[in-house]
Amino acid sequence: MAIGIGLDVGGTKILGCAMDADGSLVAEVRVASPHTPELLYQALVDCVDALLAKLGPLAPEVRGVGVGVPGLVDEHGVLHETANLHGMTELDLPAALRGPIGELLGGPGASFHLIVDNDATCAAAAEHAWGAGRGGADSVLVTLGTGIGGGIVSDGRIVRGARNFGGEVGHMVIDPSGPDCGCGRKGCWERFSSGTGLAYLARRAARAGTAPRLIDLAGGDVDAIVGEHVVKAASEGDPGVAAVLEEFGSYLSLGLANIVEILDPGCIILGGGLVAASHVLLEPGLRIYATTYRRGSGPRAVPVVLATLGERAGAFGAAALSLGTVG
Amino acid sequence: MAIGIGLDVGGTKILGCAMDADGSLVAEVRVASPHTPELLYQALVDCVDALLAKLGPLAPEVRGVGVGVPGLVDEHGVLHETANLHGMTELDLPAALRGPIGELLGGPGASFHLIVDNDATCAAAAEHAWGAGRGGADSVLVTLGTGIGGGIVSDGRIVRGARNFGGEVGHMVIDPSGPDCGCGRKGCWERFSSGTGLAYLARRAARAGTAPRLIDLAGGDVDAIVGEHVVKAASEGDPGVAAVLEEFGSYLSLGLANIVEILDPGCIILGGGLVAASHVLLEPGLRIYATTYRRGSGPRAVPVVLATLGERAGAFGAAALSLGTVG
Repeated sequence: MAIGIGLDVGGTKILGCAMDADGSLVAEVRVASPHTPELLYQALVDCVDALLAKLGPLAPEVRGVGVGVPGLVDEHGVLHETANLHGMTELDLPAALRGPIGELLGGPGASFHLIVDNDATCAAAAEHAWGAGRGGADSVLVTLGTGIGGGIVSDGRIVRGARNFGGEVGHMVIDPSGPDCGCGRKGCWERFSSGTGLAYLARRAARAGTAPRLIDLAGGDVDAIVGEHVVKAASEGDPGVAAVLEEFGSYLSLGLANIVEILDPGCIILGGGLVAASHVLLEPGLRIYATTYRRGSGPRAVPVVLATLGERAGAFGAAALSLGTVG
Repeated sequence: MAIGIGLDVGGTKILGCAMDADGSLVAEVRVASPHTPELLYQALVDCVDALLAKLGPLAPEVRGVGVGVPGLVDEHGVLHETANLHGMTELDLPAALRGPIGELLGGPGASFHLIVDNDATCAAAAEHAWGAGRGGADSVLVTLGTGIGGGIVSDGRIVRGARNFGGEVGHMVIDPSGPDCGCGRKGCWERFSSGTGLAYLARRAARAGTAPRLIDLAGGDVDAIVGEHVVKAASEGDPGVAAVLEEFGSYLSLGLANIVEILDPGCIILGGGLVAASHVLLEPGLRIYATTYRRGSGPRAVPVVLATLGERAGAFGAAALSLGTVG
């Protein structure tokens, strides 16, 4: 059976997974994420080498290698803008990797499919093929982490856009009076509904005097308030923090509803770090979405579900794309 | 050569066009739009009959009939929600039309493709196949009229969504402190950037005292201010109205930029009634978009262009969809 290797490059680690065409994990490696392009390329090649060693007699079945990276990746696999890779940018990963990985997979003329894509696009492909979107043809993955990423599947295929930059739902402006965003605009969805956005809303409430418990938890420093303090205070039943979470939820549901209007997916899948505390952080938004927002005739709001593949979704999806399981 | 018939149902008229597969108009009819379902069905069948008569010896070449209607049309061609058809809703157009049109096209067993779809989706298909998006694979049509409609083409195919309700870009919320929308939310893009939105911004400025000329033009009644007054005052060089148009442009550019983030189209095509006065109404928004918004590395903002097929785009696209020219 054909095997695909997926490599997910994060700011701190690279996760490598060898997957069969049914979406079963066959082998896995993890290494630290280097800070220079040359070391990054070498680390990726080393990951492939290590996975091939783990595959042993199955190694000749590898038909594809996919790499997921955080940032804007063009249709040629070149990484342009990224905030999370130690300042590295304009990385032509296919050019750097094709030769060395080809050597590992059988030398010059080795036949394999090499793809490089945005990590959220990879995760969307994985959740579509093997995760929460399995069985449906239209889904949108929204990753709620430090920022908000996204990937769109329409009729079983990734909606890439003309330059492969599609799916950046986190940079849709939902409130033009909102805070500045690193992208140059104001009030992007990720300014409100990511981990960073939660901290922003929490600090704003603390400054306004409506959530004093957060200041206690942050040692008296409003600027030190982070999402963990919100989770802690919420677990204590703090009413001020409950109001912060309602506000957080209203922004979250607003962006989800916008996605429904524009794309009408069969489901929206929520992934990313915030999902780990979904019962606290995401419950208000999901409740507001489900109770106040219905599109179309009758009670047919588009379901919002949690991702099922966890932190491996990016690597799984890079493998799926390299195998052509998702196009 | 195969011919497709496209019928565009508006609030006041039905436009019928017979198109060849190259996008050339072969025959055309117009009738008033009836106010009851039975009369509407009969009018559509009569349009097909009239077009077949005009086609004469070419009539046997008709392979498809497409109908575009304003509102949410599901994957079976049933029209659910609509604001512009005299209260008619839950119209199962395919069930009503298949038999009578089949009779016209050769009796029982006649082989033809019948489709019913949202009118903006039809127009997007037409502009993609035969209009401003020709030659590209990824485009988004935004129709700026009384409201805002939209249609999305990705990799040459319509992005329909799970229930065929995709493309409703006008109901993306861009400012939650904005005015109520008929959809039940607040601050939808069409509350600001449609003809209705322009009137809202103009009246708001008039009430605030910054655009007194509009009150004069509306005979002293602020609530009577409409888009035509804005165009008139702008042509006079009124500075207060220039400020209204700048504000209108900032909302327009904001929504366009959101579409770029989410979909990264090769171009955004602007259609609808406001395009007729584009030099006045759309210039500020296009300028703000082009000068302040650039996505991706370097100066590669997604181009925003005007639709080229005019009021026939919906009928053309219904024909294109019925022929499978666009899928």
